[in-house]
Amino acid sequence: MSYNKIQISHGNGGKETQQLLQRLFFSRLPLELKRVKGGVGIDYPDDGAVLQNNLVVATDSHTVNPYFFPGGDIGYLAVSGTLNDVIMMGAKPIAMLDSIVVSEGFPIDDLEKITGSMIELLKKYNIPLVGGDFKVIEETAMKNSIIINTVGLGVVETGSPIVDAIKPGDKIIVTGPVGVHGAVIAAMQYNISTNLKSDVRPLFELLEVFSKFKGYVHAARDPTRGGLAATLNEWAQLTGNVIVIEEAKVPVLEDVKAITEVTGLDPLNLASEGVGVLAVDSNVEDDVLETLKSLGFEPASIGYVVEPKSEKGIVVAKTAVGGAKILEMPTGDIVPRIC
Amino acid sequence: MSYNKIQISHGNGGKETQQLLQRLFFSRLPLELKRVKGGVGIDYPDDGAVLQNNLVVATDSHTVNPYFFPGGDIGYLAVSGTLNDVIMMGAKPIAMLDSIVVSEGFPIDDLEKITGSMIELLKKYNIPLVGGDFKVIEETAMKNSIIINTVGLGVVETGSPIVDAIKPGDKIIVTGPVGVHGAVIAAMQYNISTNLKSDVRPLFELLEVFSKFKGYVHAARDPTRGGLAATLNEWAQLTGNVIVIEEAKVPVLEDVKAITEVTGLDPLNLASEGVGVLAVDSNVEDDVLETLKSLGFEPASIGYVVEPKSEKGIVVAKTAVGGAKILEMPTGDIVPRIC
Repeated sequence: MSYNKIQISHGNGGKETQQLLQRLFFSRLPLELKRVKGGVGIDYPDDGAVLQNNLVVATDSHTVNPYFFPGGDIGYLAVSGTLNDVIMMGAKPIAMLDSIVVSEGFPIDDLEKITGSMIELLKKYNIPLVGGDFKVIEETAMKNSIIINTVGLGVVETGSPIVDAIKPGDKIIVTGPVGVHGAVIAAMQYNISTNLKSDVRPLFELLEVFSKFKGYVHAARDPTRGGLAATLNEWAQLTGNVIVIEEAKVPVLEDVKAITEVTGLDPLNLASEGVGVLAVDSNVEDDVLETLKSLGFEPASIGYVVEPKSEKGIVVAKTAVGGAKILEMPTGDIVPRIC
Repeated sequence: MSYNKIQISHGNGGKETQQLLQRLFFSRLPLELKRVKGGVGIDYPDDGAVLQNNLVVATDSHTVNPYFFPGGDIGYLAVSGTLNDVIMMGAKPIAMLDSIVVSEGFPIDDLEKITGSMIELLKKYNIPLVGGDFKVIEETAMKNSIIINTVGLGVVETGSPIVDAIKPGDKIIVTGPVGVHGAVIAAMQYNISTNLKSDVRPLFELLEVFSKFKGYVHAARDPTRGGLAATLNEWAQLTGNVIVIEEAKVPVLEDVKAITEVTGLDPLNLASEGVGVLAVDSNVEDDVLETLKSLGFEPASIGYVVEPKSEKGIVVAKTAVGGAKILEMPTGDIVPRIC
């Protein structure tokens, strides 16, 4: 393995991605160039950035392979993923931009289906597409591939954006079973037959939850690349607090377990594309769970936040048999081009 | 040639790109999903979109090949290009986001140089980088390539954004010689030796011009992909007016001519990355030229806008020998991966 060349693991959304971005950007920019004054930027990594006037902006480049998969396609994923990044900041999406890069020889019918999926969602949720770009790369450099970058803009209409600031005593809630999207893509890449469909979809209903429990939702994230393990580790690292989860309480579908058992992947490292992870004040835990159920979710309370003792900023997973281990930030290859 | 597959020409920023985007997006979205109410979006293509409160947002995916070139690199180009898109709307840049996609095996030292160029510009112009993304594509699908998507946000501090609305009587001014960046990239792709350097740079000085001549600058664009010909044709198409330019007045460097003569390319179709094209009220033409000179530019007044007679929305080029021809929207392959 060559350490001066980009490896697949640099794109895992886990430890290697963090280290590389530290080297390329974070360590080289002073604080005042990591955020707009009074806002939130790369000084405090979250789903999106906060500018003046509670304006939220988020961007992602989507590379999922294959670009059609059960339950969606790269267009549907790109729009959903970026809308979710805006929503998870507590902001109502107001506009979107897209940039598409395709390889020479890419089937135009496929492109039309993919942009059709984007348009379907924009229409369903009434989000204007206000700008974009389109580029072609020659076949000798890129083959049968499409990359869709999406930019989402949103406004926090009342109150403050949800900047992921977990507090000791908070309860950790997931809005549904985790790792489904990642398992679907892994199954296709490993040629495993499954009836699973990706959970990809925009999570607009969560805006109702954030509005109803304003001030009590201390953190919200959609656990995409790197899965639940990456989200919880980022929260712990950012605040120095310790998150304890009970593995047996984390909802994982049987079909997902079947795929992770064959591949050796961990469901906690696999991407969800239609799930939220919330850290809420313990006083509203039951009410939040009830509200989520009334909105059609199948939520679960999976753990809690405690003050750090000897070790700061870690995630502890209690195992079903009564043991405890550290749940690490994902590392290594996981599944490439998952989103 | 297969018409159901993406061709290099679909990425030329000219006629084929326009037709494809019409099919993929423009024809499939109702007006209310092409812009934010009261703003400007893909209903009226410009450098960037306008949201509420005179907020401007622009995005571009940069694919230039080779990624190091005389006068700059893809990082310098990505930041400059998107800052210029914000500036050309008459807005002061306030923040930037980036998404980088690289191929497995990409040299990390090169990546560090490229992001170093981005950081150099962000520091020089005091623009915070507030968010981003980083993805890796396996070597079997993408080779020795990097794609940088940048998002720029800006605010029009006083007055209105410069939405490209040319009027009969307007004078067309270019701020310097055209086609330099395109000629440099073409020379590298064709293995032609030259001393030319790309003109790529952010054009912050133009904000002074827009502020001084508020209301008199009716259109401003940086003529990147598709060059001067694409910019002028878009302006003519959008308004239905006719633009007349005098070819002999368009400044083209001798070194650029040397490259276009060998390659058969037209300097008017080649990208500039450090030039503005302005349409200004004829009453301020001389003052704008003087101001541009005082700011270090070498501007030229190259033509004017007239009301359409028989043919609407075209660009006419008067030739040096006294003839006239229609300057078409660029078509065909031009130079791939120019920006």
